[in-house]
Amino acid sequence: MRYDPAEFLARDDISRLQLSRLRTTCERAARSRLYARKFREHGVAPEDIKSLDDLRRLPFTTKQDLRESYPDGLNTVPADQMVRLHVSSGTTGTPTVVYHTASDVRWWSSLVARCMRMVGMTPADVFQNTTSYGLFTGGLGMHYGAELLGCMAIPMGAGNTQRQVKLIQDFKVTALHIIPSYALYLADYLARQGLDPRSLGLRIALVGAEPYSEETRRRLEDIFGFKAFNSYGLSEMNGPGVAFECREQNGMHLWEDAYLCEVIDPVTLEPARPGQVGELVLTTLCREGMPIVRYRTRDLTRVLPGPCPCGREHLRIDRITGRSDDLIIIKGVNIYPIQIEQVLMSLPEVGQNYLIELTREGHIDQIRVKAEVREEFFVEDMRALAALRERIAHRLRDEILVTPKVDLVEPNSLPKSEGKAVRVVDLRGKE
Amino acid sequence: MRYDPAEFLARDDISRLQLSRLRTTCERAARSRLYARKFREHGVAPEDIKSLDDLRRLPFTTKQDLRESYPDGLNTVPADQMVRLHVSSGTTGTPTVVYHTASDVRWWSSLVARCMRMVGMTPADVFQNTTSYGLFTGGLGMHYGAELLGCMAIPMGAGNTQRQVKLIQDFKVTALHIIPSYALYLADYLARQGLDPRSLGLRIALVGAEPYSEETRRRLEDIFGFKAFNSYGLSEMNGPGVAFECREQNGMHLWEDAYLCEVIDPVTLEPARPGQVGELVLTTLCREGMPIVRYRTRDLTRVLPGPCPCGREHLRIDRITGRSDDLIIIKGVNIYPIQIEQVLMSLPEVGQNYLIELTREGHIDQIRVKAEVREEFFVEDMRALAALRERIAHRLRDEILVTPKVDLVEPNSLPKSEGKAVRVVDLRGKE
Repeated sequence: MRYDPAEFLARDDISRLQLSRLRTTCERAARSRLYARKFREHGVAPEDIKSLDDLRRLPFTTKQDLRESYPDGLNTVPADQMVRLHVSSGTTGTPTVVYHTASDVRWWSSLVARCMRMVGMTPADVFQNTTSYGLFTGGLGMHYGAELLGCMAIPMGAGNTQRQVKLIQDFKVTALHIIPSYALYLADYLARQGLDPRSLGLRIALVGAEPYSEETRRRLEDIFGFKAFNSYGLSEMNGPGVAFECREQNGMHLWEDAYLCEVIDPVTLEPARPGQVGELVLTTLCREGMPIVRYRTRDLTRVLPGPCPCGREHLRIDRITGRSDDLIIIKGVNIYPIQIEQVLMSLPEVGQNYLIELTREGHIDQIRVKAEVREEFFVEDMRALAALRERIAHRLRDEILVTPKVDLVEPNSLPKSEGKAVRVVDLRGKE
Repeated sequence: MRYDPAEFLARDDISRLQLSRLRTTCERAARSRLYARKFREHGVAPEDIKSLDDLRRLPFTTKQDLRESYPDGLNTVPADQMVRLHVSSGTTGTPTVVYHTASDVRWWSSLVARCMRMVGMTPADVFQNTTSYGLFTGGLGMHYGAELLGCMAIPMGAGNTQRQVKLIQDFKVTALHIIPSYALYLADYLARQGLDPRSLGLRIALVGAEPYSEETRRRLEDIFGFKAFNSYGLSEMNGPGVAFECREQNGMHLWEDAYLCEVIDPVTLEPARPGQVGELVLTTLCREGMPIVRYRTRDLTRVLPGPCPCGREHLRIDRITGRSDDLIIIKGVNIYPIQIEQVLMSLPEVGQNYLIELTREGHIDQIRVKAEVREEFFVEDMRALAALRERIAHRLRDEILVTPKVDLVEPNSLPKSEGKAVRVVDLRGKE
């Protein structure tokens, strides 16, 4: 692919580009039913955007807005100009849908290709996409980016681990797109087969679609010998290609020529203080068919301070520490599952799989953490296991301020998933 | 997309183009390990190709050749020039693999887009791809073609019939890519839901990936109110986009600017007589990364005589009547499953699902055909059912020259598949 100069835009140029694209975005958006109404209700018009600060005059957009606009209330061009449609699974209600024009698909692909080149992928890489294709945006999104970069893309799709491994071996795969829980599963699978994960020769893993901890990343890098780069995206903003780590692995550069980023306090809706964690709010800057203004992603992160040694001036966001939806409230305390994962994955005795169960005993909520112990530590010495259990409970209490019950279980005894892992089971009120 | 003049090439121009591309193909192929050896063994060199008749001096390529060349023995360019790889499932041995350069993917997409436009699809169509994505070439192959044409493509993938129907309804889908057995399944599903298939508003179905009979096509068209167009392709020749019906529905135009077609007697390997059914042999004319010369597809068909009223001069092949592999030999008689399907689907009393079981009683092979009877005909009148059974057995004997046992079973009682249907179960020697 041709070199994309937007990757190294200077701050001033980014701001200039953002303002001009924000105006275009608002002009386009105003043609949609949703924004025609919202802009009117908020007494704002595209021509009111005279500086980037005027962004705050625009209304937020929520998941609920998208649902109520189903199927095409955000569209700004006739259907015959659209070439692609992705739909969320809609397990919790009306699905949300994103339409793309040919230009939108090209933009999306070029952003993904830019991410891949940033982490060091070249046309000489062989790239296996281990996530599902079809409506899931991580499939076609990564695929188009890899082809545009000129890698050889293997559209393996999700599941069928035996075949995944055979293809990695036979075609000398060097780079994977993989969900963190599946990477852990794959590590276990290889161990059971007596295969050394490092013998696969993988050098890069693009890891996304689920929140996961720094401890898990380091563990995966240690097991496989690859560099794992965090990927951030959501289907409302295309899918992958929104923000990505560079080789410094110190936060994800958010492509500001394509997305305007805010972090807000989810309660007051005011801008978060610099460095404070809040809800990420994104505005598309290059979308033609279905622009979205100030979308409340429900993802929690913060903008990282200071320049990146890599020289790219696109701002960096911290890894996603959770979603407002994932929040577990136990005994009045806010807990994110990622906090529990961090503790577990920092302990060498703990295996790759764990499960958090929420129960109610009488009127008291309880949290139970089931963790697999690694083969070599799962001894018959009950006292050693009891001591480990004690230690884990202690560490967890320090982190989440609630004392959980801890069950240590045999390796490979917890339910496995070849897709996104189910880490939290809420049994409260269901017993 | 830009209009593709190759669609209406005149016969002379096709021949001229074929000769020049055949030479290029041979020059490229000679750089691969497989063809360097094969050409040497056959005492033939690319410069020997002086007319299209010289094609016959070139060696055949078989599935076995592809397997023995696994993983990259047919490649003519370094791996870093490849952008895609598809692998067959390899259920019956070593998988076969096809590599594509960026130019190969563009060619493939443009051939699929040409097929779609030929059957009347336009950018105003909403296209749902109901086959699986990932390594199956019917997924990405059709998807890229639809996007190139400018349709709105919904990458639904296989299965999840409830969701398929919701998307068809909500997004006013007008065109489907569908496997025939799944189309029959979908018809049954809609009937069970009390939905009229014609109310979906589908106008075009691209039907392929499995052999199916003209009777099934007419039945599907009658149920859904769409026009069903037959698609032919195989992963070794990219996948879909090799040959496709035009709106005349009288055989499939094989794109001769991209594929050189022969039909041979599979026993003598000599050219079949004009109009005679034989094995289709194809040579790629535009493949850059992995050209294939005289590939024995094992698909049985014939070249149809006379010009097509549509004015396209690319030759037409008949629907695939079976594969050499599908051949059932019972009591010394050759039977193709499609012959049995033809008889069953021509009878209004027979439902959408059937199963062929081969058994051995003593030393005698038996063929048993289980057919679902449609709800309204499945009466308690044993005499009526016995008469129907008799009639089916009689019709089948006329067609396949062997008298099968016929079992009439209740609607929806045979195993269903949301993927490719299993129509033949061979129990011989397994009892």
